[in-house]
Amino acid sequence: MASSMARSVFCRGLPPWGLHRLTFLPGGARLSTRGGAPEPPAEPLTLREQHGGIRRIILNDPGRRNALSLSMLESLRQDILIDAHSDDLRVIIISAIGPVFSSGHDLKELTSARGRDHHTRVMTLIQDIPVPVIAMVNGVATAAGCQLVASCDIAMVTEKSTFATPGVNVGIFCSTPAVAIGRAVPKKVAMEMLFTGTPISAQDALRHGLVSRVVPEDRLEEETLAIAQRVCQASRPVVALGKATFHRQMAQGRDAAYATASQVMVDNLALRDGQEGIRAFIEKRKPIWSHAAETD
Amino acid sequence: MASSMARSVFCRGLPPWGLHRLTFLPGGARLSTRGGAPEPPAEPLTLREQHGGIRRIILNDPGRRNALSLSMLESLRQDILIDAHSDDLRVIIISAIGPVFSSGHDLKELTSARGRDHHTRVMTLIQDIPVPVIAMVNGVATAAGCQLVASCDIAMVTEKSTFATPGVNVGIFCSTPAVAIGRAVPKKVAMEMLFTGTPISAQDALRHGLVSRVVPEDRLEEETLAIAQRVCQASRPVVALGKATFHRQMAQGRDAAYATASQVMVDNLALRDGQEGIRAFIEKRKPIWSHAAETD
Amino acid sequence: MASSMARSVFCRGLPPWGLHRLTFLPGGARLSTRGGAPEPPAEPLTLREQHGGIRRIILNDPGRRNALSLSMLESLRQDILIDAHSDDLRVIIISAIGPVFSSGHDLKELTSARGRDHHTRVMTLIQDIPVPVIAMVNGVATAAGCQLVASCDIAMVTEKSTFATPGVNVGIFCSTPAVAIGRAVPKKVAMEMLFTGTPISAQDALRHGLVSRVVPEDRLEEETLAIAQRVCQASRPVVALGKATFHRQMAQGRDAAYATASQVMVDNLALRDGQEGIRAFIEKRKPIWSHAAETD
Repeated sequence: MASSMARSVFCRGLPPWGLHRLTFLPGGARLSTRGGAPEPPAEPLTLREQHGGIRRIILNDPGRRNALSLSMLESLRQDILIDAHSDDLRVIIISAIGPVFSSGHDLKELTSARGRDHHTRVMTLIQDIPVPVIAMVNGVATAAGCQLVASCDIAMVTEKSTFATPGVNVGIFCSTPAVAIGRAVPKKVAMEMLFTGTPISAQDALRHGLVSRVVPEDRLEEETLAIAQRVCQASRPVVALGKATFHRQMAQGRDAAYATASQVMVDNLALRDGQEGIRAFIEKRKPIWSHAAETD
Repeated sequence: MASSMARSVFCRGLPPWGLHRLTFLPGGARLSTRGGAPEPPAEPLTLREQHGGIRRIILNDPGRRNALSLSMLESLRQDILIDAHSDDLRVIIISAIGPVFSSGHDLKELTSARGRDHHTRVMTLIQDIPVPVIAMVNGVATAAGCQLVASCDIAMVTEKSTFATPGVNVGIFCSTPAVAIGRAVPKKVAMEMLFTGTPISAQDALRHGLVSRVVPEDRLEEETLAIAQRVCQASRPVVALGKATFHRQMAQGRDAAYATASQVMVDNLALRDGQEGIRAFIEKRKPIWSHAAETD
Repeated sequence: MASSMARSVFCRGLPPWGLHRLTFLPGGARLSTRGGAPEPPAEPLTLREQHGGIRRIILNDPGRRNALSLSMLESLRQDILIDAHSDDLRVIIISAIGPVFSSGHDLKELTSARGRDHHTRVMTLIQDIPVPVIAMVNGVATAAGCQLVASCDIAMVTEKSTFATPGVNVGIFCSTPAVAIGRAVPKKVAMEMLFTGTPISAQDALRHGLVSRVVPEDRLEEETLAIAQRVCQASRPVVALGKATFHRQMAQGRDAAYATASQVMVDNLALRDGQEGIRAFIEKRKPIWSHAAETD
């Protein structure tokens, strides 16, 4: 019953989580859990739930400051990948339980090659998956936790959220987080963060492009869901084509980028939903998306 | 007489348009018109005028929200290209009649290959032409209209101006606009615009580098002309060399970029106006530019 | 005695320069001087001093607005390079005597090929040297002076500082400064600076990423030293590896960048100080750095 209520509430644009989060999320009964941990913890490392095209993945290890341990990363990766190509999935929101969004790598595991592979794999997966991924942050994001925010397509954060790459303080420079952060903010901002480890405020993160919006804490879920719902109103294959093209052309020079994008415009127009969109526009009506990847 | 007055007023740094725009521009008598439209419209699609080195091109199809139709693009292209290599041209200002700067492509024409070529060609032409191009925006700029603003070298806009890439809403992701916009603003800003279609304000556009300055509406023409006049005070071949070099070196790695720029410094110093500039500086007098592309 | 006082004051985090700058710096007795000038000036072109890992280099030619003459550049280069690989050097602060941080190239020397080589060499040296370089700016920085600020890893500036690339006004487009500035700020900001020569304020420089922080004039030295001291608290080889990696991976595509950074994480973990850092973290104690570049 809670599930169908949540679904209907979703359709009317009112998020249930804002009011009920504390009692709602850890219930677990309605939430499938993932995890490659050899001994499953009492609480699942991540919670996953999906309604109306919006998948929420919640980091659920507040006792360890949501460290991106190998188990956590594997859980996160599976939560992202499962049914990723289903039409039912249209957008992913990643958030966290507790005052720390994520404290980054588990330092004790860092020496493992498997750990390093996992880290990079999840970060690039977020950019390569065909649906937009939104970080919803209400707290501290450090090191690989900050990299996770930088890697998401959109980041909604509260005033009290802070962002830091303090690895230098423990002798492990945040070189992999710097790949994502250095591509999100001006170089001087990235370098000060990396060399000093000092956190930057949500407002500074906004000013420099690390996050998309800063909202009051009591509006975070509502505003994040509003953006997720906007994404849901679009055609899935159109968004998928657009996201993949954006990252592809940004890695090219201007003229090659225009050649890429111009060819994609042809592909987009050939999509059933591309045709439907133009017809609906000309007929001044709302488009009815098929969400089909095929062309007509 | 109006023309010579305008010219003399230009030289004294006082713009005539701020006062007389509504009666001045649509008159047409003093404005040459361009257009590849098979049937010329009653009103020309673009207006063009040039005084004192400043060419103004005005999108003049407010009834169709200054859509970048094939005819409009061809008219714009010709207005940019005509006598582009004349010493008389030193800077171009692109503005628009009506509350919409430009609503982007004409969706009905999008399926045509010719349309796609035209779009990209005008956008890259703005960057490749040897004089700076200033967008003067007082209203809404969407899709390819937003791309046009992003493609200009400088953009002066009013508080009420907004910028959006809403193609996703009609099933046509703004993949070509994303080439210009993704190179103007931080990636997170571009992606939120592209995935949601939500407009951003002039202040947000300024914050993120999409526009150069936000000014009150009643100061827009004056401030834009002031910048144009500053450009006119420089040597044309020096500006042309600088603009071409900027775009070229920005596409290179740091060391290659410095090699490019260092060689250009040699070329610049060899220009007659480079020599004159240094002489004037040493002699503590105003330089007298030849605007000649030759070296001494 | 002044020197040992300064050293002890350093260790306690209180900067001596804020109070004593005018009498302290030009004294010269405690400051070694460099310079390739054929006839050494009465005052050395740069002052250099080092305490507690922090090297200060001070441009000391206020009468010529700290022009980056060939002599000044050579003096600056030697001050940066001397004992650059000593463990005693951990961070460099570049500041200036007088109201002008630096007015850029000496125009009279620009025609010399030796000058051009020197310019580029010092700018890239700042990025390639293994310790962070902080610009501490309290005044005007123009042309190559602005490039110097853009080339530093961190820039602390006062409200009254301004930044400009006015070469276009004297017929010499700031094409080499544009290499550094175009990589520090959004393209529209760079192009307006380059085409108009108009200065931007410290706040605009901050907004667009050209500088790291704007602080009140009476707090400049204290805040700059606080950041320098934070850098000094880290392991030198860890910072060196991080700085080199940052610039290297930023020049690569995302996947190559992650491959680079992931390999560096292995190297970093193998460093003696990487091992010590993790041990100290796990043992909840302060790390004791060896600053040794060797691995265990």
